[in-house]
Amino acid sequence: MIRFEVLVLGNSSATPIFERHPTSQVINYNEQLFLIDCGEGTQMQLSRYGIKSNRIDHIFISHLHGDHYLGLIGLLSSMHLVGRKSDLHIYGPAPLQEILEVHFKYSETVIRYPIIFHHTNPNEEEEIFSSRMMSIKSFPLVHRIPCTGFRFNEGKRSASILADKVEAAGVPKPYFSLLKKGIDYVDPTGKVFYASELTEPGPESRSYAYCSDTVRHPIYLSSIQDADLLYHESTFLDDMRDRAKETFHTTCLEAAEIAKETGVKKLLLGHYSARYKVLTPLLEEAQSVFPNTELSVEGKWYLV
Amino acid sequence: MIRFEVLVLGNSSATPIFERHPTSQVINYNEQLFLIDCGEGTQMQLSRYGIKSNRIDHIFISHLHGDHYLGLIGLLSSMHLVGRKSDLHIYGPAPLQEILEVHFKYSETVIRYPIIFHHTNPNEEEEIFSSRMMSIKSFPLVHRIPCTGFRFNEGKRSASILADKVEAAGVPKPYFSLLKKGIDYVDPTGKVFYASELTEPGPESRSYAYCSDTVRHPIYLSSIQDADLLYHESTFLDDMRDRAKETFHTTCLEAAEIAKETGVKKLLLGHYSARYKVLTPLLEEAQSVFPNTELSVEGKWYLV
Repeated sequence: MIRFEVLVLGNSSATPIFERHPTSQVINYNEQLFLIDCGEGTQMQLSRYGIKSNRIDHIFISHLHGDHYLGLIGLLSSMHLVGRKSDLHIYGPAPLQEILEVHFKYSETVIRYPIIFHHTNPNEEEEIFSSRMMSIKSFPLVHRIPCTGFRFNEGKRSASILADKVEAAGVPKPYFSLLKKGIDYVDPTGKVFYASELTEPGPESRSYAYCSDTVRHPIYLSSIQDADLLYHESTFLDDMRDRAKETFHTTCLEAAEIAKETGVKKLLLGHYSARYKVLTPLLEEAQSVFPNTELSVEGKWYLV
Repeated sequence: MIRFEVLVLGNSSATPIFERHPTSQVINYNEQLFLIDCGEGTQMQLSRYGIKSNRIDHIFISHLHGDHYLGLIGLLSSMHLVGRKSDLHIYGPAPLQEILEVHFKYSETVIRYPIIFHHTNPNEEEEIFSSRMMSIKSFPLVHRIPCTGFRFNEGKRSASILADKVEAAGVPKPYFSLLKKGIDYVDPTGKVFYASELTEPGPESRSYAYCSDTVRHPIYLSSIQDADLLYHESTFLDDMRDRAKETFHTTCLEAAEIAKETGVKKLLLGHYSARYKVLTPLLEEAQSVFPNTELSVEGKWYLV
């Protein structure tokens, strides 16, 4: 099975407390690493959990509240100091580029590797990254300032050859890749062997959706539909629903209702308010509506 | 004895490693707290060592390399979130104000307490803070970009009344404060009692000098002369002296020579390069020239 996992580096909302850190996550897909958000201290969290920052080539920033991006400048500088040469892609709100440039101007830093900015669109879903194995989309969330979520969709997984059947049919090896694509094999006598009978379908493609920060809103439901794993911010317990609306955040109960409505397989909670030292009540509230919920814990890998 | 101590929050140079953090220090003078530099993660370090950030009213930033100020925006935001109302004074290079304003503009944050900027002068020594008990000066260091050190000078300590002597002389209580100022007492018969005989001099005023980051240079020696405690960056061992010059840093041996030349009482090392996991060789090198040297350790208070 190809590895597809999420490492939570920070699960705190704006005020870091109780040894919880501002938001950041590493996605490992087949040993390619992606970083989502980069709160203050992310470079130290990466080092704590044994992730070499130079393995990351793509960084996704949801929005420009400090707890989601203030670790970025330090991380970029450290990548520079350890001699990075390869391209770094940053996907985020357009003004992020200006913010970074102001810092580098006054620190008189000339980063020695190329940084390629990709400005996210806060108004519409867009594909922002695509490879043979993975497609990544940003989509609008509803927060106090422009903000997007991100969805990682694994590419279609190829079918597997059924060894005994291709042997019995006498299919030459060069035809295997055609069979995997669903193209039938016709032998020299004209006999047809159906691809569907010589192969078994590949495993289902998996997907991960990330929603932080946002108030509950129908605009993004189609973007997270049927995800295998949904990380959804759950800043408050539901007795603070008014406060959640006011501050453009979500309660645990709402996150669970969203998970249920969109048919996701599993829900991961996070972005906990500084008012909660003990998190069990947050989990219990969400599980009352959507049992397959887990609390995100810093330093833990979650399977997609 | 009035408390005058330095808490080291971060002793790392630019790349944080081995659980060492970027530069930041708290000065406690008589329960008034001052912060010098504010590297990434300072707010978490404050919380780890039990310092309430809202007790800090004055923040001093030496220069605009990220490892000396990237924690400032997060700290200011957290002060805002916990409801700070009182004035906050920030002393640092002029462009710091622009950097903060760019962040607050795009995060649409309106800080609800007054921030008062004081631009430091990178070319000349200047008094930047003064109270009855304390005077603080900035002075030029020599780094790749404009940078200042800071010196905290305790005000003149008042003399103490010698209880038995004033009683014998029959000095009325309202005259005690005059005696402390050195004004002699003349009794109703015209007899003179000398202040110097009715009081003992106050303890010597203490001073703390902070030098980071800088290459060794005569320009700042007079500013740190005779300090009780000198924190001086010591990024490298002396076998890296060329590298130190190139990067505008100092070696441990140089820091010790500076301490000796300027007649300071004690030297505190810090701003260690990421290449040193074990720090004993740095201490030994400095002590070979200046025995009263200590390694700064995060979380430890140092007496001035």
